[in-house]
Amino acid sequence: MSSSTLVNQLIEALRCLPGVGPKSAQRMAYYVLERDRAGAETLSTVLARAVKEVGHCIQCRSLSEQETCDICISTNRDRSTLCIVESPSDVQVIDQSTDFKGLYFVLMGHLSPLDGIGPEEIGLNLLASRLDQGEVKEVVLATNFTVEGEATAHYISEMVNSRNIIASRIAHGVPVGGELEYVNSSTISRAFSSRQNF
Amino acid sequence: MSSSTLVNQLIEALRCLPGVGPKSAQRMAYYVLERDRAGAETLSTVLARAVKEVGHCIQCRSLSEQETCDICISTNRDRSTLCIVESPSDVQVIDQSTDFKGLYFVLMGHLSPLDGIGPEEIGLNLLASRLDQGEVKEVVLATNFTVEGEATAHYISEMVNSRNIIASRIAHGVPVGGELEYVNSSTISRAFSSRQNF
Repeated sequence: MSSSTLVNQLIEALRCLPGVGPKSAQRMAYYVLERDRAGAETLSTVLARAVKEVGHCIQCRSLSEQETCDICISTNRDRSTLCIVESPSDVQVIDQSTDFKGLYFVLMGHLSPLDGIGPEEIGLNLLASRLDQGEVKEVVLATNFTVEGEATAHYISEMVNSRNIIASRIAHGVPVGGELEYVNSSTISRAFSSRQNF
Repeated sequence: MSSSTLVNQLIEALRCLPGVGPKSAQRMAYYVLERDRAGAETLSTVLARAVKEVGHCIQCRSLSEQETCDICISTNRDRSTLCIVESPSDVQVIDQSTDFKGLYFVLMGHLSPLDGIGPEEIGLNLLASRLDQGEVKEVVLATNFTVEGEATAHYISEMVNSRNIIASRIAHGVPVGGELEYVNSSTISRAFSSRQNF
């Protein structure tokens, strides 16, 4: 049916990427082969290296090609504040958009007992021993505001408080640029009750 | 700033794909590294092979890893009908959705004198010698219905007619599932003038 087996294999392989269906895979395959072979070659090389070399940082569990990631190894960061996030992309988001200069701990998921994901699977034993070392003075909980994310934040806050360490949670509220009319009612309610002096 | 240089290189490299901006590239990179390393490895291998091995079919100019593509080499196809398209993806679209069993000729573009793309650049000298061989009895023009596609079709139709070969153009009209109210007026006008007995 088709003009080239290898092209079809490429279309099929591109579908491992999230959000790429049969039509976009086809478009991507033809695009790179017709117009950007250099880019495709680089992608192939970097992808192979990343799959082989990127593992998890032994301190924060984030993705890293070194045993300890750049952030954990940095001497410019405040080692007394630890921000807990669900995934490595959250680290990037927070680092790019805030002036947070502490360290991170990446759960690589959230508590989900029905799927067999308990405290150990999200590295909470590692977190516990980290907290026991006494260096961390405040834990910022930045898990998602989903049911599972909230439950996970709650569970960790108890671990943290029981060690007499401060646990804080990033704020709920109206997004910047948001119009009240289009924001859902529970967000409005939370924003209202967390109001601050102007 | 970021957790891993190799991850960032991967995010950058993914942007060679069409329609992939910084946010989706980030999402793709983290997704494959966290959840689908096997898929990513296959993609890397196939991509490298495709970049190296896929060239152009010497008969139809479409993408192919062989000197002559599967369609041109096939003995089950009607060698007297030749369908002219702009890109290899059009071959796939037509082959998947019609019962056309002739051969194809891929322009790899369209006439665009201002960009220095003349008849030679879209392989019309190759097409001319193909038509001169006398095997082709009908040429179906399936270039896009854009200004350039129409101009290219017109140019080729003159080449074809001057050799006493039939040139036909795929039909304009209302798309299947289309509601007249939402179809633009030139399409309606063309559909009306090309009406057929029911």
